[in-house]
Amino acid sequence: MPYELFYWDGIQGRGEFVRLALEDAGAEYRDVAREPEGMETMMAWLKGLGRRGVPPFAPPFLKDGEYVISHVANILHYLAPRLGLVPDDEALRAEAHGMQLTITDFIAEVHDTHHPISAADFYEDQKDEARARTAAFLTHRVPKFIGYFDRLLAASAERDVEGGDCAGHAFALGNRFTYVDLSLFQIAEGLAYAFPRALANFNDAYPRVAALREIVRQRPGVAAYLASDRRLAFNENGIFRHYPELDQIAY
Amino acid sequence: MPYELFYWDGIQGRGEFVRLALEDAGAEYRDVAREPEGMETMMAWLKGLGRRGVPPFAPPFLKDGEYVISHVANILHYLAPRLGLVPDDEALRAEAHGMQLTITDFIAEVHDTHHPISAADFYEDQKDEARARTAAFLTHRVPKFIGYFDRLLAASAERDVEGGDCAGHAFALGNRFTYVDLSLFQIAEGLAYAFPRALANFNDAYPRVAALREIVRQRPGVAAYLASDRRLAFNENGIFRHYPELDQIAY
Repeated sequence: MPYELFYWDGIQGRGEFVRLALEDAGAEYRDVAREPEGMETMMAWLKGLGRRGVPPFAPPFLKDGEYVISHVANILHYLAPRLGLVPDDEALRAEAHGMQLTITDFIAEVHDTHHPISAADFYEDQKDEARARTAAFLTHRVPKFIGYFDRLLAASAERDVEGGDCAGHAFALGNRFTYVDLSLFQIAEGLAYAFPRALANFNDAYPRVAALREIVRQRPGVAAYLASDRRLAFNENGIFRHYPELDQIAY
Repeated sequence: MPYELFYWDGIQGRGEFVRLALEDAGAEYRDVAREPEGMETMMAWLKGLGRRGVPPFAPPFLKDGEYVISHVANILHYLAPRLGLVPDDEALRAEAHGMQLTITDFIAEVHDTHHPISAADFYEDQKDEARARTAAFLTHRVPKFIGYFDRLLAASAERDVEGGDCAGHAFALGNRFTYVDLSLFQIAEGLAYAFPRALANFNDAYPRVAALREIVRQRPGVAAYLASDRRLAFNENGIFRHYPELDQIAY
């Protein structure tokens, strides 16, 4: 039975981190809300009509038979051993999960660059605050988070991990490719879309993240996915948004 | 060997969710940064000097022998089966973890009520924006999140879970007490500290969360902890802060 992913139609959003793992692994899955009447199906689930017990707080969630798993990092933690995208070892799984939760925090901060006051209001109603928050994000938070991952990739070059690649690629978890690398690819793609001007020096500042991005892009499953109509374009309803007035050099 | 928790001294902060689980279970642990020269030890770890591989992004992190686990929800997911604070069943563990990740998101939003623009700046430099963000938080986000957990507790009254209590208590995971309940207690405590005026009707609006809070408070391990000097008071360096100018009725 294929995995069933539930996430809003029309945007990459948080669901994209799960899609990339499923697509890279060539897993069978349904993207339920994008099917005819799929949004109705998802909303029924969110109202608790589709299962016993309690509905998830919000999309994305994944259904695997009787299992219902919510939150991106939780879904990836569950899926990855089944997809071969993390070692089975508990300590290594926990380490990868910790990295993914750092990515989760970063994604929430990306969202708040355009919605610093209230997710219930339009961006247009909080533009001044969005400029201030985005300046702080570009000045402090991108270097803190992406700099961390770049150092992590540097340290990985020396680290052999169970099931790792002998070719010596540096991934987030040593020489072992995992779902964390797919998420780092998505972050690099999203930042390039949202802030092409402010982060024009991204590849120089974070060369290892930039190199990883190109390696991931060429993986067969990812390349096929990116070329398909299943990959939606970034747009201004998603998490990574390009607003020229926010895409300014922060200094 | 006792667990070693690493978290900033002087605040409850995110570390408190881990402490509550360790204390409720009566586990042996060291709160390393609160020991003499403990901050130096923690900072050395964050610089990567204390271990092979890569340091965690930020506190809290937990050391268990050779394991190093970062992020509150990841630490609790790892600890809880060992402490008897979650069933062993994978689906139930994943369900509890999903709830905890919803709590993680909420905690980030609590933090941003007083720091909506930049964590690198003082609250005093973003007071106007903090008022606006807090108004949206009290109007939209508290009802959304706490209302969700109240409905979840209501649904739990009908749900028997492996290892559950026959007495019919309603916890987050049916009739089975878990670490999620400890975290909900901490949220209720924190909101009562930060917003006593704006959330004066908390117990009426969220009666099941309020009832859970009292049940948790009376658990032997929690009661002993709260009465000890290990439990720091809330203060204005932590996540839950009481600023009278933010503690206003939002409507």
